[in-house]
Amino acid sequence: MLATSSGKTAHGVLRYRGDSVVAVVDSKFAGKRVNDVLPWLGSTAPIVASFQEALAYEPSALLIGVATEGGRLPAEHRAAVLAAVDAGLEIVSGLHELLRDDAEIVARAERSGSRLWDVRLPPANIPLFSGAAYRVPSQVVLAIGSDCAVGKMTAMLEIERAAKTSGTRVEFVATGQTGILIAGKGIAVDRVISDFVTGAAEQLVVQASAEADVVLVEGQGGIFHPAYAPVTFGLLYGSAPDALVLCHRANKTHIDGWDVELPDLAGLVAIHEELVGRIKPARVVAIALDTSALDEPSARDAIARAAEQTGLFVDDPVRSGGTAMWRTIEQALRGTTKALLATGAP
Amino acid sequence: MLATSSGKTAHGVLRYRGDSVVAVVDSKFAGKRVNDVLPWLGSTAPIVASFQEALAYEPSALLIGVATEGGRLPAEHRAAVLAAVDAGLEIVSGLHELLRDDAEIVARAERSGSRLWDVRLPPANIPLFSGAAYRVPSQVVLAIGSDCAVGKMTAMLEIERAAKTSGTRVEFVATGQTGILIAGKGIAVDRVISDFVTGAAEQLVVQASAEADVVLVEGQGGIFHPAYAPVTFGLLYGSAPDALVLCHRANKTHIDGWDVELPDLAGLVAIHEELVGRIKPARVVAIALDTSALDEPSARDAIARAAEQTGLFVDDPVRSGGTAMWRTIEQALRGTTKALLATGAP
Repeated sequence: MLATSSGKTAHGVLRYRGDSVVAVVDSKFAGKRVNDVLPWLGSTAPIVASFQEALAYEPSALLIGVATEGGRLPAEHRAAVLAAVDAGLEIVSGLHELLRDDAEIVARAERSGSRLWDVRLPPANIPLFSGAAYRVPSQVVLAIGSDCAVGKMTAMLEIERAAKTSGTRVEFVATGQTGILIAGKGIAVDRVISDFVTGAAEQLVVQASAEADVVLVEGQGGIFHPAYAPVTFGLLYGSAPDALVLCHRANKTHIDGWDVELPDLAGLVAIHEELVGRIKPARVVAIALDTSALDEPSARDAIARAAEQTGLFVDDPVRSGGTAMWRTIEQALRGTTKALLATGAP
Repeated sequence: MLATSSGKTAHGVLRYRGDSVVAVVDSKFAGKRVNDVLPWLGSTAPIVASFQEALAYEPSALLIGVATEGGRLPAEHRAAVLAAVDAGLEIVSGLHELLRDDAEIVARAERSGSRLWDVRLPPANIPLFSGAAYRVPSQVVLAIGSDCAVGKMTAMLEIERAAKTSGTRVEFVATGQTGILIAGKGIAVDRVISDFVTGAAEQLVVQASAEADVVLVEGQGGIFHPAYAPVTFGLLYGSAPDALVLCHRANKTHIDGWDVELPDLAGLVAIHEELVGRIKPARVVAIALDTSALDEPSARDAIARAAEQTGLFVDDPVRSGGTAMWRTIEQALRGTTKALLATGAP
């Protein structure tokens, strides 16, 4: 895996699919192991300075674990990717810039037999939104967030784990490149043509509903994000959720990198419910608070304050596990108009 | 021009570029002229039953003037398109399904020398939204709407005409296929990858600002449209408007084809201002009411009621011309924080 310390994709894969990572390429932390640097990811994979060193661990694939703005391959990683291609490894990329559009990479992959997987490339023939998502028999829960990178994917994966443990037929629906790498399937909706984003979300929900009583949809962006709100609304309307889990980073007041002040948590709940309320009503049933930057007492305090302000169940599912949050969601789903869950924790 | 009586694209081109249309293919009304069927479009072009008959009028291009759901070429029009290709005409298509992806059309165009213009195909290398739109020196006015097909493009074209007449350096920014056919340039934002829709809107505004003091951006869809809201938000945030013109069809209460009840006009004004207010504040400064289905007294009544309910200037710029609406917009723009307009009507 090719990673940097700021690699959101790399962190997600290490946390949820760490068993498949034999080594991490990151010159900044070379010589250490992942758990020396990022202990909460639960991975002991060695960190090496270059792709050449990583070859000693006999990888079968190189994952480009760097999520860059605009999704382009950073020039400093190009040599490593070409070396991996020449070594015949599969190349797995979640970047907007597609491997298949890079003539040099394609030509060298043809020579070496290297397989190229553009995780972000959506399937052909995504249909327009049809309303079929309104009629699925399963319950759909969507993660919404105050911004990008506030733990939407992580919250859903922790809730999925808890729901599975309780015996529920549940499926996590990946909508971004990291989620797809973890789930092994999904659609990177930010790469879908804008007219078809709602259709892509709908297709994912309809497919997942065939095999699950509860469908947990990974959210993207935020409704007040100047650049990425279109993707957010594609999921908010297209997945036709029955319930929403609001994700937020403790003490966050603005959109990262933008002079956009967020409403408080109660305001965020209200505006989301107002918007979906016209189309297919859904309530925010729980708040997942990312408290990773806080110590334990501060985290508890932040969670208590958020619960008091909103009157909702609030927890950090990474810190506490997803069990309590899943119980709350399940209880709320039992109160919706759809059929009661077939199975579930008592 | 290949058209049907429900062809939104055909109607727009006939109304604003009617001088370039030598004949309309529409078997339903063959033998008549456009002004016999749709007098308000101001075109006297003959309507013929087939493309073969249209050849007598020596067209240089065939415009596929049918805007279909999902943007596919209807099977019944395929023969006409192929005949036009074989005759060496330029083929102009605003459909999602690209001419250049159709192997048979491409092969036959190569043989005949027919040029293929996919109006909807966005330019390569659209950048991510950067915030540059916040800093353009010109004033940006965006048309928003309660739904699709409520006169957003038409309102902006009427306002453009009035502003030009008054001597203002103004530019209409086309964001959909019909607007592009009329303006001769633009980006069909619904065909842009969702992560880049805001960037596309920004790029259009930045480019238009170089040549205009007032930039009039064509809106798309509506914020409560279950399928198309992502495109709407791409323009609402990405064009960074200084002022909004709300477009609505008189007596409309729901999204066409969906069980989605709209807020009343005052509610529509409030929710749009609340959403953009967090990102770059802009007020709704006028309401363009499509009263084409009403007689004159009913239209006047609908306009008066909308004005009373919202406290805003309301008019139907197609019925009345855009002069009064432009004066209202110009007055409102003088009150914004940007520099006063360099030129404008007294």
